[in-house]
This record gives sequence, C-alpha cells and structure tokens, in this order.
Amino acid sequence: MVEYKVAANSVGVVETKYFDFDEIELESGKKIAPVRIAYETYGKLNKNKDNAILLCHALSADAHVAGYYKDQFDEDGNLKVDEKPGWWDNMVGPSKAFDTDKYFVICSNVICGCKGSTGPSSIDPTRGEPYGLRFPVITIKDMVNAEKKLIDYLGIRRILTLSGGSIGGMQALQWAISYPERIISTIPQASSARPSAQAIAFNEVARRAIMSDPNFNKGDYYGKERPRNGLAIARMMGHITYLSEESMKRKFGRKLFKDKVGYDFDVDFQVESYLRYQGEKFVERFDANTYLYMTKARDYYDLVEEYNGRLANAFINSTNVKYLLISFTSDWLFPTEHTKEIVRALQAVGADVSFCEIECDYGHDAFLLETDKQTQIITNFLNRVVEEEKIEII
Amino acid sequence: MVEYKVAANSVGVVETKYFDFDEIELESGKKIAPVRIAYETYGKLNKNKDNAILLCHALSADAHVAGYYKDQFDEDGNLKVDEKPGWWDNMVGPSKAFDTDKYFVICSNVICGCKGSTGPSSIDPTRGEPYGLRFPVITIKDMVNAEKKLIDYLGIRRILTLSGGSIGGMQALQWAISYPERIISTIPQASSARPSAQAIAFNEVARRAIMSDPNFNKGDYYGKERPRNGLAIARMMGHITYLSEESMKRKFGRKLFKDKVGYDFDVDFQVESYLRYQGEKFVERFDANTYLYMTKARDYYDLVEEYNGRLANAFINSTNVKYLLISFTSDWLFPTEHTKEIVRALQAVGADVSFCEIECDYGHDAFLLETDKQTQIITNFLNRVVEEEKIEII
Repeated sequence: MVEYKVAANSVGVVETKYFDFDEIELESGKKIAPVRIAYETYGKLNKNKDNAILLCHALSADAHVAGYYKDQFDEDGNLKVDEKPGWWDNMVGPSKAFDTDKYFVICSNVICGCKGSTGPSSIDPTRGEPYGLRFPVITIKDMVNAEKKLIDYLGIRRILTLSGGSIGGMQALQWAISYPERIISTIPQASSARPSAQAIAFNEVARRAIMSDPNFNKGDYYGKERPRNGLAIARMMGHITYLSEESMKRKFGRKLFKDKVGYDFDVDFQVESYLRYQGEKFVERFDANTYLYMTKARDYYDLVEEYNGRLANAFINSTNVKYLLISFTSDWLFPTEHTKEIVRALQAVGADVSFCEIECDYGHDAFLLETDKQTQIITNFLNRVVEEEKIEII
Repeated sequence: MVEYKVAANSVGVVETKYFDFDEIELESGKKIAPVRIAYETYGKLNKNKDNAILLCHALSADAHVAGYYKDQFDEDGNLKVDEKPGWWDNMVGPSKAFDTDKYFVICSNVICGCKGSTGPSSIDPTRGEPYGLRFPVITIKDMVNAEKKLIDYLGIRRILTLSGGSIGGMQALQWAISYPERIISTIPQASSARPSAQAIAFNEVARRAIMSDPNFNKGDYYGKERPRNGLAIARMMGHITYLSEESMKRKFGRKLFKDKVGYDFDVDFQVESYLRYQGEKFVERFDANTYLYMTKARDYYDLVEEYNGRLANAFINSTNVKYLLISFTSDWLFPTEHTKEIVRALQAVGADVSFCEIECDYGHDAFLLETDKQTQIITNFLNRVVEEEKIEII
C-alpha cells in the first residue's frame, strides 16, 4: 500500500462524496429535482454529533477545502510537482484554526456549482441535456437550504460553527437567520448584508464579458467551444477586486515583464502577465454559467431590503447563536463598514457578538491568505464556545 | 442668418480646425508622416500672444472642450433635444474658470485619437488603408510633442497655463518637463507621475476585452463589424474606476430597475442599466484601437523610472514654471497620494507649487464634474500668475 507523504498538519488524502436528494424548492418559487451535493469531510464526528463545523465556499471554490486527492501523488506517495491542496488548507487540519483533531469539518459545493453539485452543467432530466441558463437562479438562502439537507443527512442536530469568506460569509450569516436552532455559533468573514452598487457593477461587467462571448451561445456551450475569453476577462477583473491596491503594489508595482517596454500590445508589466495567467488557469477549471449564477446570488443578497430597512429584525430569532465576525482593513469589495453594519444590528438585538477587523493588505481575498491572526482569533472563539456549550471533544 | 441661442456664459457655436504637418518622431524611435491634429480655440489671442491656455484631454475625449456645433441647433437656432456641449463646458467660457473673455483657450485631439487627429483609424499612406495596430505606440511625451507643434504653428511663444485631468493632467505635467521655457504655469488635475499596478491591471483587462472580441481582427476592422462588445465591456469597467464607491451608492445604491428582481440574467439593478447604457453609447462615438493606444500611453507614463528613481530630477530644469496641482479625495484610480508625490518632488527642487485636494465624492471623474471649487482655485491661481507675469489681458 502506498504511503502518501504529507505535512503532519495536513488532513492528508481526501475524497469527495456525494449526497443525492429528490428535490429542492427555491426562493424564486422554482424547483430543482433531483439534486446532488458534492461534499468532503475531515476529522471525526463525536458521539454527541456536536463537534461539526460547516465551511462555506466563495465564488470560485468547491467542496475541496483541505488535503489532496490520490492522483496528486506519484507511485512512491510523493506529491507531484506543483500540486496544491484544497482552498483553505492553511486553516483546516490538525492543530489548525479548524482543528481536524477536534472537529468534524464539512464543506459542500454549493448548489449551482460546477464541482460535483447540481448546477447549470448538470443534465436537466426533463430535457436530457445540460440545464445551461434554464437552471433556476439560486440565492444565498437556496445554498443554505441545500446545505441544511446535507446536515440532516449526516445526522447532525446542531452545527458547532460555520465559517467562510465573501459569498461563504453570507452563507455563514444566513444559516443563523434561516436555522438558528441548528447552529451554536457562526464566523462570517469578509461578508456583507448587502453588496454595494460598485460590487454589483463589477459583477455585471463580468456577466457581460461572459454573455457577449460568441461561444456563450445563450449558455448552451457544453460539448462545444466554451466562452473562454469571456470567462477569462471576468476572472481577471474579479481578481483585481479581490486584491488590494497595496498588495498589488507590493507584489508587482510597475515591474516590467521583460527588461523594457515593447511599444506594442503584448505584456509589458508583470501585473499583466499575472492577470492573464490567472484568467487562463481559471477557464480550465471553472464553468462560465456557474460564474453567472454565483455573481447573481451575491448581487441579490440584501438583508436590509428583506427586513424592510431594519437589519436588526433579521436577527430577532437568532440571538441564541454566538457570532464572530471578521473583516479585513484592505478589503474594498466588502469593506469593514459592511461587517460593522451587521455587528451593530446584532448588538441591537442583544446577540452574543464578537467582531475583529484584521489589519492586513491582502484585500478581499485576505480570508484565504492571512493565516496567523485568523487562526488565533478563531481558535480562541471556538475554545470559548466549546467550553460554554460543554462540547465533549473526541 | 440664424441666431444660435445659448447661455450667456457659453462659448457658443464652435468649429473644429485642423493643423497638418509633415512628420513626427516618437519616443519609440518610430515616425508618423504626415500628421493631422484636430483642434478648437475659444476666445481671442492678445497682441503679445501670452494669454493662451492649452487644455489637454483624457482617455475618451477630444478637441471639443466647450460650446456646440451648428448641427446641434434647429432652423430657428434652438438647441435640439438632448444635445450636449463640449466635455469641459462647465469650466470653459465667459466668466468661467478658463475665462474666454480673458484667455485664448486651445484644445487639440491627441495624436492617436479618433476625433480628427491622426490615429489608428487614419489612412497609412504607405499602405493606402487604415493603420490599425500598425500605428506606432504613442506616449504622453509624444502627445505633448504634437501639441508643441500646434502651439508653434499658432505663433504662441509662451503658454499662460495648461490644464487637464487624468491623462490630460499627465500632459499638463509633461509640458513643464519637456518645454519649461514655453509655459508660464500648469494645472495638472487628478494626475500621476506613475499609475499604480492596479490602474495598469484595469487597463489590461480592458485591452483583453477589446482584443479578444472576434470582430477585433487584429485591429483591422474598419469598414467591417467593429469590436463593439469588447469596447463596451472596457468602457463599463472603466466607468466603475472613474466613479467612487460613494458616488455610485448615492446615485444608484441597490435601487432596482424594475419593481422586483427578475431571477434571470436581465438587468435587475439600476447601476447595471446605467453601465450598459454607458457602454452602448460609447461604442457609437469611439474607436476601439484608440482606446488601446490611450490606455498604453497611461500605463507607460513613469517619471520615477525615467529619472532613475528620483522624481525631483524630472523638474530640475522646470523651476521657472508655476504649478497648481489638484487632486480629489474620492479618486481611487489616481489617488491624492500620487499628486502629493509630484508636489513633494517639486518642493524638493524649490518650484513655485500650489496644491489643493478637493473634497468631493465624484471619484476620478471629479475634474469633469466638480465645478465650484475648481473654478475658485483656478481663478485665484490664474489671477496671481497674470499679475506676477504682467500679462495684458485683452
């Protein structure tokens, strides 16, 4: 048997699992049937089934939070060159913030995703071909409802905590509103109760780029040329919004790609080369339709509108939940002010809320990149929750 | 004869003029021959020819700074519905900041432009067809050199002042470096001595959008379908960078376009509708190739690099010029810090420099939109320059 060589604090080799259920009713009034949800788990569920942590992913990620797949190793069990672990591997594993020696960590690919869960690339059983844009529009609430079915299926009565950044943070927040009795605490990061006009504007440009690519074909491009250019442009622009001006300056500044400018329209600056690479890499792994659906879900999220201008009302029935909200100083897509708006609403209803703004220059992507401070804050918070709730860790 | 009815402080009906010259040598080492420069003038040149103001335009504008063309009026001399004046009409005219009762105001379409000056859409005489991408890459210095030829042609020995925002501000600054003996003062606005990695990144995404439009055809699309989608996407994204998050919030917030969201990929929010409209309007009036050239000129501008890391050295021979630099608090594309970098360099060489950061939420476009404070500051500055230099106003 091959021994897979990984770091001591890695969850090691993991597998994606699948959960199928009959149907789901959506916020739009439409239904999807049947539904498959791809998920991964790390660590062990304790006897009381109360040490589970549900992580929620953002726009471009998936159920693969941590560890590696078998095919990333060679025959001797050594990682192949350039193989990367799951998207939050720095935060999930033995002795990490979401400590898999203590907790049972779950992550599922959202409904409308393109990494194993039912989404626009799935076969619509009524037509025998991929849904494409006939897939119904999905909201954050719909994502949470699909996750809730998975949690039911796993036999977990109360989730110890949830976390995620950006769209993942919105899910972590929405869980507290939709299913307060089913969660003990939640840790939304780089989140917002209502994205700004500017954030919507960037998403709209991304959608235009995808939908005006001639290969888009109204979303029916499966088995044909895909709208690669449109998706690459969307990703390049998105990337600028995930970084901060400071981090781009630090990483690239005005450094040239070659020794001098070319006086042409090829790559002149390193930042251009980086963005092109990010765009090209992304189209290899992501479905353009899912990009459309994820951006719409983000745009539609508006707790203030939903609760008639009184955000606090969203949390009236959720004061049993312990909240830790984390924002990042350099996040200009969902700035700290958005998190503070949520914090103030939670305080107004007397919820148990902790808030931390982490100083770092990574921008919106900071929840993926900053490890040390997040780990410290989350570890302390979880220790407190575990103690107060008398959770018996394995 | 028709009497054209315009406001008392309008320059009224204007005409575009053209100046042709044999050739220009470019910073890249290439040449363009022949060259035509489109320009407009308002007000009268005084006897000493020292009351001239040269205005420099930004990415998407042209020589038409103020007033109207004849064809914008109906037979009775009334402005037709929805007709707009030149791009800086709020600043140029009788009793305005650039007072055409006192000054002779000039603006030319930059070389590489698409509004009458020689650019990629012009016929390349060596091939008998439009240049397209065979047009050489143009720099800010090249733009200034073309303007200098126009100023020579107009018989102006010393320009009283220059002004412009963004790429126009870069030209206003470069004039002081390239031709300090030919200018008395300059007023660069919303400017930068070197755009940031983030600013380059946005331009690169815009170029990708244009160049990956199948109609782009390596720039040879004249007389055929133009890369409308690509240019519209570039413009939509550009527009986000010209506004501020605050102004978008004030103007649109999360206001819906219809009474509720559509659960589809049509327009849901007013900000989406606005951006689509901006994109569509722009492609009617602008050439995609010129967009590429203008963005490259902006990206390439780097006085710090050119002067080996010592920006002050750029101004060593330009201390005779009086400087007024203006920045805007909400400009995140060329933030105030970029202007301050220039101010510090000018102070280091003992130049006569005034600096004003105007508080307003319009973003980078503020130089086009904010009138009152700009007018006050510029009027005071010009009065001082006129007095100190003993300019005899008409």
